[in-house]
Amino acid sequence: MLGLMQDRPLLIADLIEHAARHHGDVEIVSRRVEGDIHRTTYRQAAGRARQVAHALDALALPQGERVATLAWNGYRHFELYFGVSGSGRVLHTINPRLLPEQIAWIVNHAADRVLAFDMTFWPIVKGIAAKCPTVKLWVALCDDAHLQRLTAEGTIANLVSYETWIGSHPTRYDWPVFPDDTASSMCYTSGTTGHPKAALYSHKSTILHAYAAALPDVMCLSARDCVLPVVPMFHVNAWGIPYSAAAVGCKLVFPGAQLDGKSVYKLLDTERVTMAAGVPTVWQMLLAHMDANGLKLPALQRTVIGGSACPPAMIQAFRERYGVEVLHAWGMTELSPLGTLCTLKNKHLLLPEEEQMKIRLKQGRAIFGIDMKVVGPDGQELPWDGQSQGELMVRGPWVIRDYYRSDKPSPLVDGWFPTGDVATIDPDGYMQITDRSKDVIKSGGEWISSIDVENIAMAHPAVQMAACIGVKHPKWDERPIVVVVKKPGMDVTREELLAFYEGKLAKWQIPDDVVFVDAIPLGATGKMQKNKLREMLAGYRLPGL
Amino acid sequence: MLGLMQDRPLLIADLIEHAARHHGDVEIVSRRVEGDIHRTTYRQAAGRARQVAHALDALALPQGERVATLAWNGYRHFELYFGVSGSGRVLHTINPRLLPEQIAWIVNHAADRVLAFDMTFWPIVKGIAAKCPTVKLWVALCDDAHLQRLTAEGTIANLVSYETWIGSHPTRYDWPVFPDDTASSMCYTSGTTGHPKAALYSHKSTILHAYAAALPDVMCLSARDCVLPVVPMFHVNAWGIPYSAAAVGCKLVFPGAQLDGKSVYKLLDTERVTMAAGVPTVWQMLLAHMDANGLKLPALQRTVIGGSACPPAMIQAFRERYGVEVLHAWGMTELSPLGTLCTLKNKHLLLPEEEQMKIRLKQGRAIFGIDMKVVGPDGQELPWDGQSQGELMVRGPWVIRDYYRSDKPSPLVDGWFPTGDVATIDPDGYMQITDRSKDVIKSGGEWISSIDVENIAMAHPAVQMAACIGVKHPKWDERPIVVVVKKPGMDVTREELLAFYEGKLAKWQIPDDVVFVDAIPLGATGKMQKNKLREMLAGYRLPGL
Ligand SMILES: Nc1ncnc2c1ncn2[C@@H]1O[C@H](COP(=O)(O)O)[C@@H](O)[C@H]1O
Repeated sequence: MLGLMQDRPLLIADLIEHAARHHGDVEIVSRRVEGDIHRTTYRQAAGRARQVAHALDALALPQGERVATLAWNGYRHFELYFGVSGSGRVLHTINPRLLPEQIAWIVNHAADRVLAFDMTFWPIVKGIAAKCPTVKLWVALCDDAHLQRLTAEGTIANLVSYETWIGSHPTRYDWPVFPDDTASSMCYTSGTTGHPKAALYSHKSTILHAYAAALPDVMCLSARDCVLPVVPMFHVNAWGIPYSAAAVGCKLVFPGAQLDGKSVYKLLDTERVTMAAGVPTVWQMLLAHMDANGLKLPALQRTVIGGSACPPAMIQAFRERYGVEVLHAWGMTELSPLGTLCTLKNKHLLLPEEEQMKIRLKQGRAIFGIDMKVVGPDGQELPWDGQSQGELMVRGPWVIRDYYRSDKPSPLVDGWFPTGDVATIDPDGYMQITDRSKDVIKSGGEWISSIDVENIAMAHPAVQMAACIGVKHPKWDERPIVVVVKKPGMDVTREELLAFYEGKLAKWQIPDDVVFVDAIPLGATGKMQKNKLREMLAGYRLPGL
Repeated sequence: MLGLMQDRPLLIADLIEHAARHHGDVEIVSRRVEGDIHRTTYRQAAGRARQVAHALDALALPQGERVATLAWNGYRHFELYFGVSGSGRVLHTINPRLLPEQIAWIVNHAADRVLAFDMTFWPIVKGIAAKCPTVKLWVALCDDAHLQRLTAEGTIANLVSYETWIGSHPTRYDWPVFPDDTASSMCYTSGTTGHPKAALYSHKSTILHAYAAALPDVMCLSARDCVLPVVPMFHVNAWGIPYSAAAVGCKLVFPGAQLDGKSVYKLLDTERVTMAAGVPTVWQMLLAHMDANGLKLPALQRTVIGGSACPPAMIQAFRERYGVEVLHAWGMTELSPLGTLCTLKNKHLLLPEEEQMKIRLKQGRAIFGIDMKVVGPDGQELPWDGQSQGELMVRGPWVIRDYYRSDKPSPLVDGWFPTGDVATIDPDGYMQITDRSKDVIKSGGEWISSIDVENIAMAHPAVQMAACIGVKHPKWDERPIVVVVKKPGMDVTREELLAFYEGKLAKWQIPDDVVFVDAIPLGATGKMQKNKLREMLAGYRLPGL
């Protein structure tokens, strides 16, 4: 027997319409690449999202086609979130920190039809335009005057300014209604070996995640909040904040391109931000700025920190020096991204501070909707004893079942997604990441593939074997170094090898150091044993630290 | 193009499994009709819910069949919530405050196959058992010893104690997986004219409502909370609290049969309850008890008050005398039930207290998922100006599209459900109920059908015409009175007419007063114009007030 409830699909357009109707005058504040602070409202953003939908209709772009962005956090990017997905197209947010070739590869793999970019990324766009034949229209996120200045020294075909592109269209629009398992958005992750792979989210998964992310035990978002997502909108949809924000009607503050401590502080302060979210690196810069200048943030209540393990000192500094609660979060692109969040339980409320701190350091408890388990090498589930380490597996309605256009079989194992993280779970359900089974390095919230780093070193004539490992770094969380065995009778210096990386990887992906060793430990199957290597280098220190 | 996310149905069994896994030791405290305070945990409750599922399987009860309850808020009722729906049967919670004949009518209309009841309701059950041929098993929510005492003076066929019924079954169970639009539970409402009508909820609508109800701008439920639902589990699933509680893992306190101020206070105090929810009448009793005895509730942070308009003095008393935030809520059976909740917005935070109070008095803003509008008599949408009154219409995934086994067409108008409430909506989206267009009266959170009251009066030989209307009452919110035109030359006194109601309606449904008039205003089509009648009686005061 079926229930007799209304069968309304869960669609992303409903989010912006809800915000426009119930929170029409709530502000969206953006630091623009134009240099100024821009103010708009949910009502205006909804009107312009509808203009985006019209503009895509005018291109006769069929539903399901990809519209890409190379953009900072800002109001135009926010409008695209709703205009693109709401009208049935797929929003493809690209990480502009990748190398142009990597970006071009992704654009081609996704077969993007439109690409909207912040002026900052004009050099990238100019460089890749010719290599991206699927893109029929390039949209510069600015007005005509700015676009003219941008193209003064040369332009590309099929280029238009965003303001002109949407400007002539009506601000009213009838959003299409379609099944809510329709694709809404996609995000490539380099967090795996090989080429980047894309998660393809649906309207339903996005809306469910939007509810979940706003819960009191997750980001606790309400209409009383003013939220600043430092986490980029090109990085798993800024942890879903744009969607949850529209659902609850909080004020939004977008930091644009300036993520240094001073700029972020200024916005937090002047806009009276109550909640901010980002990777540890950004908060390190903010803390340093506040410490150096004796600043405070009376309005700020909490920060959600995730994407890399949050250092204990950071949690303590925020709590003790600034009265800001730090919520430690774990998630990944394949999870939309939120999986666990660390908040206390009722029974913890009377624990002494240091006992509470031990809990806060963990990655947290699974949000309802996410099932998790840790499994041993044999695939058997391990006990929740806080001791047994195993690979973390997850499942749920906002977890992927496959990658987009992948030629490999689905990554799922019996319906569970293997995260590649090694973790323990304690009897209260608090998960703690203890290691990473995949050998990628995370620096400043971004992935660096150890395999890429190794492959380049191996391409040098004097290198016999190379292993890339991550070394803890106080600011970037981890930095890659490359451990090298030279070919007999051949020579290469540290400086020569580092120079060899230039132009082959983005600057921040180039290892910080080269360590020459006589041999790299190998396992039975000939695989490099990085755990042993890490042990060998236990006393190693990064240059300059 | 479809998204590539996992296609996991949203099922109620997942709620209790999540609670058992992540909050296994969290307490569920119940005041039992046995007289004691009982303590269990989510882990144990999950085990017993699984035993319920086995017990239903052992009856070979097909999926979709109805299992009814006549029960207070308590742990066994909680177990049935999950065991019945989780295993694919439909939980039918019946309001025990109805007359036995009304209950029998409902049981037959729903064709309930099992009926579980608290010992309190044994007299009702004994009275209706013979009239309920669909019921194959009667389950007394107690153990065998208590059942023996209960049946000492006569019993009924097919009667078993709950503890014996579930006791022999294993506590492990593989919950079935089915589409999430499957019916999960049902609730009859008398909030309409004619026979009671049932909303038939689905697993999906219930889970979406569970997420929504826990949001910071709704009940704000977290694992740090200890929640006492005074609102009955037979009244729209205690506003969904059992489901949301399991999703977030808060401690639960069930008050059982004793809802007087003293008993509720005692539980709130000893269990350190942080959040409680109920209709205004219950809070009136609590406030009176605390005022009279100079008591405080340091742990209690907030109460959700709804089901009837919350008097301003109550909001003030809770805030000012007890430091408790009152959240005014509006909802209805047909909405699972939550529709709007009154919390402030960011821009209101710096308003003076009296300006904030003006907002708090309203019924609140629509939760994301609920669309609302007010329409004029012509069905046209009215502006959100805080002035224009019209019928409130709603839609969304936890709103009904039809009643169960109704012989009438769907109540929806262009996809919108007409609530029968008259309201305004202000520019910030705050809805305020100003009147009720449906001819039913709400007293202490329970419905009284004006038609029933009128029909009985009309059956009296001296009555020519009778109109029943609700009059505001400080404790019960509304009380019915009956306005009567006598037949020419005939006489009947107030006392005679009131005596005439005895045995024909439950005591609390009998009108408080009879007002004799010369004529009742009639409209063009001969219908009684109750609005005019209310105007005529503007100066009227209930006896004893
Ligand atoms: N906060 C409230 N203020 C005024 N009336 C309310 C409120 N909450 C519920 N109601 C009334 O109760 C009805 C729903 O009753 P029920 O279906 O029994 O939950 C609504 O349609 C309203 O008439």
